Amino acid sequence: MKKIFVGIDFGGTNVKIGLFDSDLKLLAKTSVETKADTGPESLIDRIGDATEKLLADNKLDRQAVQAVGMAAAGQFDLTAGIMISSPNMHSFKNVPLRKMLTDRIGKPAVIGNDANIACLGEFACGAGKDVEDMVFFTLGTGIGGGIVTNGTLVNGANDNAAELGHIIIYPDGRVCGCGQHGCAEAYASASSTAKRAAEAITAGAESSLESLLEEKSEITCKDVYEHLEAGDELAKKITDETAKVLALLCIDVLHGTDPQRIVFAGGMIAAGDILLDKIKEYFNKYIWSMKTETVEICFATLGEDAGLIGAAELARRSIVIPA
Amino acid sequence: MKKIFVGIDFGGTNVKIGLFDSDLKLLAKTSVETKADTGPESLIDRIGDATEKLLADNKLDRQAVQAVGMAAAGQFDLTAGIMISSPNMHSFKNVPLRKMLTDRIGKPAVIGNDANIACLGEFACGAGKDVEDMVFFTLGTGIGGGIVTNGTLVNGANDNAAELGHIIIYPDGRVCGCGQHGCAEAYASASSTAKRAAEAITAGAESSLESLLEEKSEITCKDVYEHLEAGDELAKKITDETAKVLALLCIDVLHGTDPQRIVFAGGMIAAGDILLDKIKEYFNKYIWSMKTETVEICFATLGEDAGLIGAAELARRSIVIPA
Repeated sequence: MKKIFVGIDFGGTNVKIGLFDSDLKLLAKTSVETKADTGPESLIDRIGDATEKLLADNKLDRQAVQAVGMAAAGQFDLTAGIMISSPNMHSFKNVPLRKMLTDRIGKPAVIGNDANIACLGEFACGAGKDVEDMVFFTLGTGIGGGIVTNGTLVNGANDNAAELGHIIIYPDGRVCGCGQHGCAEAYASASSTAKRAAEAITAGAESSLESLLEEKSEITCKDVYEHLEAGDELAKKITDETAKVLALLCIDVLHGTDPQRIVFAGGMIAAGDILLDKIKEYFNKYIWSMKTETVEICFATLGEDAGLIGAAELARRSIVIPA
Repeated sequence: MKKIFVGIDFGGTNVKIGLFDSDLKLLAKTSVETKADTGPESLIDRIGDATEKLLADNKLDRQAVQAVGMAAAGQFDLTAGIMISSPNMHSFKNVPLRKMLTDRIGKPAVIGNDANIACLGEFACGAGKDVEDMVFFTLGTGIGGGIVTNGTLVNGANDNAAELGHIIIYPDGRVCGCGQHGCAEAYASASSTAKRAAEAITAGAESSLESLLEEKSEITCKDVYEHLEAGDELAKKITDETAKVLALLCIDVLHGTDPQRIVFAGGMIAAGDILLDKIKEYFNKYIWSMKTETVEICFATLGEDAGLIGAAELARRSIVIPA
């Protein structure tokens, strides 16, 4: 009987559910609305229903399911299987998600932090599939992270490892949402990049983004990159600073766990080579001359399914599969 | 028969050799002069002789030796067992130390970087003996590091993990010996701390250290701490900056692998609580407010034998001991 692993990726709006085989090949997927305000019991119940329907629709045997993996934004106690809190689902406090999933689906469940699990997905079959040591950044509203050393995802003593966006780049610099000053996230997340551009325009900088800011009263990181491509000088300056901060972040994590590959993911990588090349340029400018570094800096390859695939990989890793 | 593990710690002047039992209890130790200019063959031969004599003198059976672990400053290819280069032993280039030790002593040998191995020693039976995740800093001429996650020492893709002194604290800041700008090491190693004090005095700062600098034409980190205790304002300012940099370094590594304990070692910890308390004060000032951190920041407990003990632990870990 073909073994099946279920991956579940909690988002603020939708929860994606995927069925995977032992080689992490996606067999089928679906989604349900998160509707976090209906509470955890309702959500887990709807996930259970949707998973059963997905299995039945695809003529897959429920008994073939080996384990269920789940990724979500939030703080976790992984040993206890508890979601302590979540930025997307404010009413979810100290929810025993692992037990609830295990009880509802009737198979062993495992849970994890979204950025960590997206890292695991890229490690298993994306940008990190051929290495043993990688560091992963996801550039969105914030900067999430993941660290794999010697083939193992690092969780840390308090299941809070790889909060890499909160490495301090400029002591006493910009205030971050976390309460620190000068975090990488306060400069180089998609949101912070857009915010820095808006602040500069408000402070009087000339830019082709100005009319857009007046019209919409806000600009996005996508706007910044579009105007960069069109040759806007402010967009270039803002992107330069983003790339410099990300390069310094790469140097800091390189001197930490010495990864073979550093992988960037998230909406912001749509900026493409113009961003990646700048990061590499600053990395080469600021890295030590004591030895030649061979670390590869690249973009993720799995797109929005990284979390779903990572959740399935988490499930697969939780089971000892006889050879 | 009692099992014996040999630990060897290479220093620039002396090589320490220790015999340990399965519980890492030191049975006997000795040392030989390094005399690096006589070359690796001569050194390994003298180490072999000294080890045999140490066993014989203590009526220990050579056959009881299970494995040999060795720590040294330098760049390594751990998979190949090769010392690529060493700052203390300039003539040692691409030396197959593991094979040479194995051949000479007739037992399996393992090698590792000195700061990493001192970290392993503190982890096995020092300041980290009751945790699973720790980060280690050694404050001397430079700042070395070590990372243990989930009970395992992190080596990295190029056996170059935990070069934590080269995490950049101030981009475009002071030049570091490594070629980067603004490394923690360029501010907060023992040497850099003394150097900053001397620079400030030369630039005209008032200090009770001034006459000492004129007299000896240099000052040490120990001098700075002595004058700090005596109430010198400049010594206070210099120590403050050292503590701030070390605190920022603690925050950065906390957001990396999320250790339960951060351990400082090296000559500089002789400064005592006056330094440790300042580091904690800055840590609490600069750490995020998003969640309460429980990481413990403390001093190492094994003193100068950390490397020797770590080398024996490395040997012990290389052997699967039947329960």
